[in-house]
Amino acid sequence: MKNFVFQNTTKIYFGQNQLNHLGEEIKLYGSRILLVYGGGSIKRIGLYDSVMKELKKNKLTVFELAGVEPNPRHTTVNKGAAICKKEQIDIILAVGGGSTIDCSKAIATARYYDGDSWDIVSGKVPVTQALPLFTVLTIAATGSEMDCGGVISNMETNEKLGLVHPLLQPKVSFLDPANTFSVSAYQTACGSADILLHIFDCFYFADPEGKMDMIDRIMEEIIKTVIKYAPIAISKPDDYEARANLMWAASWALNGFLGTGTVMAPTCHMIEHEVSAFYDITHGHGLAILAPRWMEYILDETTAPQFKNFGVNVFGVDAALSDMAGAKAAIAKFKDFLFDTLGLKSKLSDLGIDDKNFSIMAKKACSNGILSGYKKLTPVDVEAIFKMCL
Amino acid sequence: MKNFVFQNTTKIYFGQNQLNHLGEEIKLYGSRILLVYGGGSIKRIGLYDSVMKELKKNKLTVFELAGVEPNPRHTTVNKGAAICKKEQIDIILAVGGGSTIDCSKAIATARYYDGDSWDIVSGKVPVTQALPLFTVLTIAATGSEMDCGGVISNMETNEKLGLVHPLLQPKVSFLDPANTFSVSAYQTACGSADILLHIFDCFYFADPEGKMDMIDRIMEEIIKTVIKYAPIAISKPDDYEARANLMWAASWALNGFLGTGTVMAPTCHMIEHEVSAFYDITHGHGLAILAPRWMEYILDETTAPQFKNFGVNVFGVDAALSDMAGAKAAIAKFKDFLFDTLGLKSKLSDLGIDDKNFSIMAKKACSNGILSGYKKLTPVDVEAIFKMCL
Repeated sequence: MKNFVFQNTTKIYFGQNQLNHLGEEIKLYGSRILLVYGGGSIKRIGLYDSVMKELKKNKLTVFELAGVEPNPRHTTVNKGAAICKKEQIDIILAVGGGSTIDCSKAIATARYYDGDSWDIVSGKVPVTQALPLFTVLTIAATGSEMDCGGVISNMETNEKLGLVHPLLQPKVSFLDPANTFSVSAYQTACGSADILLHIFDCFYFADPEGKMDMIDRIMEEIIKTVIKYAPIAISKPDDYEARANLMWAASWALNGFLGTGTVMAPTCHMIEHEVSAFYDITHGHGLAILAPRWMEYILDETTAPQFKNFGVNVFGVDAALSDMAGAKAAIAKFKDFLFDTLGLKSKLSDLGIDDKNFSIMAKKACSNGILSGYKKLTPVDVEAIFKMCL
Repeated sequence: MKNFVFQNTTKIYFGQNQLNHLGEEIKLYGSRILLVYGGGSIKRIGLYDSVMKELKKNKLTVFELAGVEPNPRHTTVNKGAAICKKEQIDIILAVGGGSTIDCSKAIATARYYDGDSWDIVSGKVPVTQALPLFTVLTIAATGSEMDCGGVISNMETNEKLGLVHPLLQPKVSFLDPANTFSVSAYQTACGSADILLHIFDCFYFADPEGKMDMIDRIMEEIIKTVIKYAPIAISKPDDYEARANLMWAASWALNGFLGTGTVMAPTCHMIEHEVSAFYDITHGHGLAILAPRWMEYILDETTAPQFKNFGVNVFGVDAALSDMAGAKAAIAKFKDFLFDTLGLKSKLSDLGIDDKNFSIMAKKACSNGILSGYKKLTPVDVEAIFKMCL
């Protein structure tokens, strides 16, 4: 187990009709708001009106940035930062899912930089300041509502990079499970895969040197929560219990708690970012396709015991099996869940992706020639994993 | 499941040799420190010297309040507040266990009040301000290092009352499992019972109207962590893994996370506070004696299913048993753990307590004539539970 520092300061309002606290909280930080959202689903479900009503009631001045893309672009960040500078924005209010929140985080800091926001995302320029960020969440997936990271894409250079800094932690997030009732079956499946893979990929299979036992057990319970409730939310979209469990699971999957005592090593995430940087697919779907192939590729006598544990503790695989047989059974159960229960297409080729860019994508995934993690991977390894996904 | 607000801002440094961050963190809040500690065990284990070295290295001015009691007294709080006023203290640094930290929380706010600190503890005067609090923890038990509550005793009136306010949340806490190597077998048992009972009593059996499923499952894993590691820490006091799991379990048992989606209703805690207010016993031991008798007293067809769940999910009780048989098996396993595995004496009479004050203690436990919780209890019920503990 490793030493660690843990802190998560975000204040969460969870449940229905909590938005009446938005005004009182936001006024602590100022009066000029940039409201950031995506393609307009928040208008269809009436959330835009609820938020605006609350802001107007509190006499706040609201500017808007609409149209944030899934896989949000640095060009959109630049637009948002320009509004913040011109209109002397005090607070950013992101209403949407992970893309909208990630974009808002980048805007919050780009507001204090005069050049292209990509300079900050790519690490050329450090984060030194950020506007306070509030969020109203509309999908259980990335956990961005309760962490200090985001992912921004540059479609000109086919790059998708993470931006992480304590200043990007949201001040207050509003999580109403009812706001996710309208999330489609496909997006619920992708979001659920994302939650599950955050735990699986970032922490559970991240550190071969041993973690804190309690945290391993809690990870398994959160994974099991997703496995239990994602199919319910897909078949009965307005099931509050299911949506609530998924929403709170998403926030805790990546808010730092599950990383205590271990190192974060999100191998599949690093590989997937190349796929969505090149092909703009939904991140959670890409992860679902890649993860079991990554398991198959690195399966050997050193990885089999923990893969088997995963199967036994999460999927009820028979503990009497050998490590190797148990590991294979775990992978099979995992695939069943992702591709049968969640109904996600199982191949990159199903998403119109061929092997044309695999070689360059593999090289980019291994930025220093090697991708460290549960097993070290070279570009040759990553390319082989991509090919297993066809 | 209930709506909730969750926030926990404490920054945790966990692990060995993290104390070298004490100076840099504390200097953000000022330069004049009141160091608060208990009976001197921190000197025996060298922790006092380590802390002082770090404070002196950072040129901080240190005043001391030593001798905080187990079940800390309001009179000690008054002493600490007087030092804070006279010496213009900027920060309180608690080095010790729950008693020392609880006392420090009360001092932090009593510093801003000119009368007796009991006025604040008893709620006559509200908390309006508090000095920033740092903690260095020496026992896994109360969770005070990561919550905003404390318990203070008034031995003149035989009262033991909780004080809870967001301003009492520690800014930074240092959790080094090695600092608990010297905790005795008895205190390790009492601390472990305290952790377990925080979950069991405050949340797991608190709300008959249904909680968030994910949180129930996580509660069971943290309880199982205590059941697994407490005996190891007792038989091998310097087992780092065991001490670390217990320490982190203690912090999460009562930091707000396990209360999300439910109401807090710490029935056994309310009953136990009367016992230690009258007899000054160790809180965790009192809880351990009371909890299984409380289960037996309220066992009926409405409580049996969840008691059985507890047995099945935590102790491996046979799921095929009837609810009533499963609940009885769960209580038996729970007693085995507390009184055999942890080795705690099982009766109040073992601690020299007779029934002399039971009637008045029972009335005090039911402050408004009734003690609400998983089952509502009257003073007659509470007195009957006390008698079952003889």
